[in-house]
Amino acid sequence: MKTVTIIGSGNVAYHLYKAFSLAENILIQQVVARNKSALETFVSPDKLCTNFEEVVDSDFIIIAVSDNAVEKIAGLLKNFKGIIVHTSGATSLGVLNKHENHGVFYPLQTFSKSREVVFQDIPICIEANTKHNHLELNELACTISGNVQRVNSSQRRQLHMAAVFANNFSNHLFYLGGKICAENQLSFSILKPLIKETVDKLEVLSPYEAQTGPAKRNDQNTLEAHLSILESDLHKDIYTLLSQSLQETYGKKL
Amino acid sequence: MKTVTIIGSGNVAYHLYKAFSLAENILIQQVVARNKSALETFVSPDKLCTNFEEVVDSDFIIIAVSDNAVEKIAGLLKNFKGIIVHTSGATSLGVLNKHENHGVFYPLQTFSKSREVVFQDIPICIEANTKHNHLELNELACTISGNVQRVNSSQRRQLHMAAVFANNFSNHLFYLGGKICAENQLSFSILKPLIKETVDKLEVLSPYEAQTGPAKRNDQNTLEAHLSILESDLHKDIYTLLSQSLQETYGKKL
Repeated sequence: MKTVTIIGSGNVAYHLYKAFSLAENILIQQVVARNKSALETFVSPDKLCTNFEEVVDSDFIIIAVSDNAVEKIAGLLKNFKGIIVHTSGATSLGVLNKHENHGVFYPLQTFSKSREVVFQDIPICIEANTKHNHLELNELACTISGNVQRVNSSQRRQLHMAAVFANNFSNHLFYLGGKICAENQLSFSILKPLIKETVDKLEVLSPYEAQTGPAKRNDQNTLEAHLSILESDLHKDIYTLLSQSLQETYGKKL
Repeated sequence: MKTVTIIGSGNVAYHLYKAFSLAENILIQQVVARNKSALETFVSPDKLCTNFEEVVDSDFIIIAVSDNAVEKIAGLLKNFKGIIVHTSGATSLGVLNKHENHGVFYPLQTFSKSREVVFQDIPICIEANTKHNHLELNELACTISGNVQRVNSSQRRQLHMAAVFANNFSNHLFYLGGKICAENQLSFSILKPLIKETVDKLEVLSPYEAQTGPAKRNDQNTLEAHLSILESDLHKDIYTLLSQSLQETYGKKL
């Protein structure tokens, strides 16, 4: 049996709490955050802690707070023997190096509290300060995921940025597509089969092979027609730059 | 039994041929294109036609060619009684108005020849010059899809642009995410569970609700860190504009 302390009350803390609660041979000892009402929505009362002076040592102390608070929170944990990890894609391993045992436990996923996720497929990117701690973290990650990968700090920073392109920005494009629909008395649901196929295609084709559309085929008439009906200058600029990037990718000139 | 003539040899013609070949009470009489070798890859020899003077009239003549060729191809069809339709999102109904019976039959999907699609869920957006022709087109569309919608030319033009955002551009962002992975000795497959969840989330959340990431939470440190490691100026500009659009959407200031 391994023990875990989770620090944080946000989306990642919530989903890790859910996942480790169901994992075999894992005991969550505490979930710690200053925001009691946020903790109360998901943590059982006996594990809830709002006082950082009362944080207990565990085999693993998982700091799942916003990136800019990681170092400060870690600084509150004096003389802990457990492996102290953060869950941030954008933060290096080094911010924890005042601690004897430390590492990174970065689940590569988009988390919202209102949406349950299945951890089994989620890549958990781990990094540790010693080989022994790496093995320990690997074992911990394997209790909730079948997709554990060793990723160093430099790779993880790049991977986090890749995830911003692949998830944050693509979701925003779905939003912009839906906005255009709504402004024209069409339901967002009309785009859903297209969006679903966009992703389903990636089971058999690379994004390079799956690409279709006017920019790829260098259809200037359609590109100009779209730019003429887009109302927002910002959206025009986004349309132009993404079309330009597509044309570069497929060796076409604007 | 209704008869169909398909003009074209590209992705849309190919997939419509496949779908109508399996539809009940539909007989494809001909598939017509100048490019014989393209037709030979999917059309049975008895239906193949490469001479536009030999095009037969059918209940429906579907012009599935590139947008800028629609009008010219339609001009070759003199005194046809069937309903002549095009399949273009970006082209108005009006380009066919020299023909007694005409309409639009726009399947809203991304088509690649190497990827089979299930038409049942694909929205078919139809428009016609008369009520009778609308009913006929509706009946035709229902033989292959359970999602037939009446969409006028102005709406369709906007919908086509929305589809460019939701599919073409988001797929390109998947490509850019994969490129960043490849440049850092990581496989594109590490992003796939994230990409899948990005779309699966839309079953229960709107894109507005599903959004996560540094731009939404106005995390300037991460935005600046990402911009500092992006190498291409074009990709930096794309990152900046999409972050700006996200911040506007969530009421944050850059």
